[in-house]
Amino acid sequence: MKTYLDCIPCFLKQALWISRRTTDDEPKIKQILGEIGALIKTIPLNSSPPETGRLIYKKIREITGISDPLKDLKKKYTEIALGLYPFLKREIEKSDDRLLTAIRLSIAGNVIDFGASRGFELEKEIEEILKKEFAIFDYEKFKECFESADEVLYIGDNAGETVFDKILIEEMNKPVTYVVREQPVINDATYVDAVESGLDKVAKILSSGTDAPGVILETTGEEFKKVYNDAQFIISKGQGNYEALSEEKRPIFFLLKVKCPVIAKDIGVGDGDIILKKSF
Amino acid sequence: MKTYLDCIPCFLKQALWISRRTTDDEPKIKQILGEIGALIKTIPLNSSPPETGRLIYKKIREITGISDPLKDLKKKYTEIALGLYPFLKREIEKSDDRLLTAIRLSIAGNVIDFGASRGFELEKEIEEILKKEFAIFDYEKFKECFESADEVLYIGDNAGETVFDKILIEEMNKPVTYVVREQPVINDATYVDAVESGLDKVAKILSSGTDAPGVILETTGEEFKKVYNDAQFIISKGQGNYEALSEEKRPIFFLLKVKCPVIAKDIGVGDGDIILKKSF
Repeated sequence: MKTYLDCIPCFLKQALWISRRTTDDEPKIKQILGEIGALIKTIPLNSSPPETGRLIYKKIREITGISDPLKDLKKKYTEIALGLYPFLKREIEKSDDRLLTAIRLSIAGNVIDFGASRGFELEKEIEEILKKEFAIFDYEKFKECFESADEVLYIGDNAGETVFDKILIEEMNKPVTYVVREQPVINDATYVDAVESGLDKVAKILSSGTDAPGVILETTGEEFKKVYNDAQFIISKGQGNYEALSEEKRPIFFLLKVKCPVIAKDIGVGDGDIILKKSF
Repeated sequence: MKTYLDCIPCFLKQALWISRRTTDDEPKIKQILGEIGALIKTIPLNSSPPETGRLIYKKIREITGISDPLKDLKKKYTEIALGLYPFLKREIEKSDDRLLTAIRLSIAGNVIDFGASRGFELEKEIEEILKKEFAIFDYEKFKECFESADEVLYIGDNAGETVFDKILIEEMNKPVTYVVREQPVINDATYVDAVESGLDKVAKILSSGTDAPGVILETTGEEFKKVYNDAQFIISKGQGNYEALSEEKRPIFFLLKVKCPVIAKDIGVGDGDIILKKSF
């Protein structure tokens, strides 16, 4: 997905929110916003938003000296999600379509996002998403592609959401490679966050090799690139990965809750909608 | 009022909105956002937001070559307000406190604002503001100061709101100098807009001498400065003028509807509140 003009003020808004979590030194935050403002001229509109996200978080790291500003929030939501795990498993047990319920839960976990929007009530969202109608529902294609694949490449998004992903992985019952970010960015899951969620028990964890909040292919590592190019069935979680991969001609299934009007417009659905969408 | 960090993303958002009304040339709009982004470093946080607003609209004028991007909206809302004039006058006729009802209507007119927020339903807002409780209500001080003053200095805000101001001026029945912006900025009223609203029939119209969306004193003209310094009773309409004058030790009464969380915080009221506030 390209960068829309509306993304530009939003970059500043996100930078402000994250910066405030690292420091209450107003001149320092002002400096961050100034540096990011000065970057705007250099952002090509045909780049995808996570490419700029990457530059923004690099600036924040450089100026504040803090490499993982949302570490506490990631830990908190991983713990909350682990606490919900038995309840989530019961939802699977009592459902008629275990795979679909697991997909729904994995999308419910995607509300734990401190990038696009920051206000959510997790348990309420879970209840809603378990019943909500999909705006795009390529479930038959998903099952077909999944059944014919030997392995699953699962590109993760946020910490805490990882626990919900674990539930879907448990239902799929096939070898899974779970992709995390190389370095902390927003509240995206890194290796440590994935392990804290117990994903190492059900999947091979692989770093994307990038510190962008989305797997922008040019910035990913060689190992990821190889696995990605060979993959027969790919799950891509969340907005950042959608933004990075939306134009790819690969067997990708995007699972996400739309949390921003720009992405809603790009996909052709409403803000707040949930989607299970095949890439092409 | 100083510039808060939250104002910075909002400057970009406003610039984007206004730019889109001048052109659909995305690279040109991107250029505007880039130039404004580059300005962020130079904005002192102790300057007031209209000082930056002034620079932003200057950039938009320079890059697009369009001096009055909201000319059509200003005309439209002036016409709508003129159409409402007989209804507004009847509200005054049937009220127990004509001056207070006129003040309420003048605040209702302040919703016609394309700076801070851009969504409003004028007639619904009028109905609400006629009944709404004031968050700050210095009405006794207002009457006292007004009664002892020979003249009124009335600092206007937006086009269309001007018609509502005319109604308050008619109720005050004292010599009034009505201040407009020197040049178009957002949908702020200029001389032409004031005349289209019929203000020249009830007041002397004076340019502030500034193209900022608020009377930042250092940027105002000599004539305005003199009138301002001599004034015994000053009405200041809207957020932009509040931002410019909030720290002044002069007999100013701020009449506005709060349309932004930052100003709400600065005043110590809620977003959406209405206020009639003495300056000190």
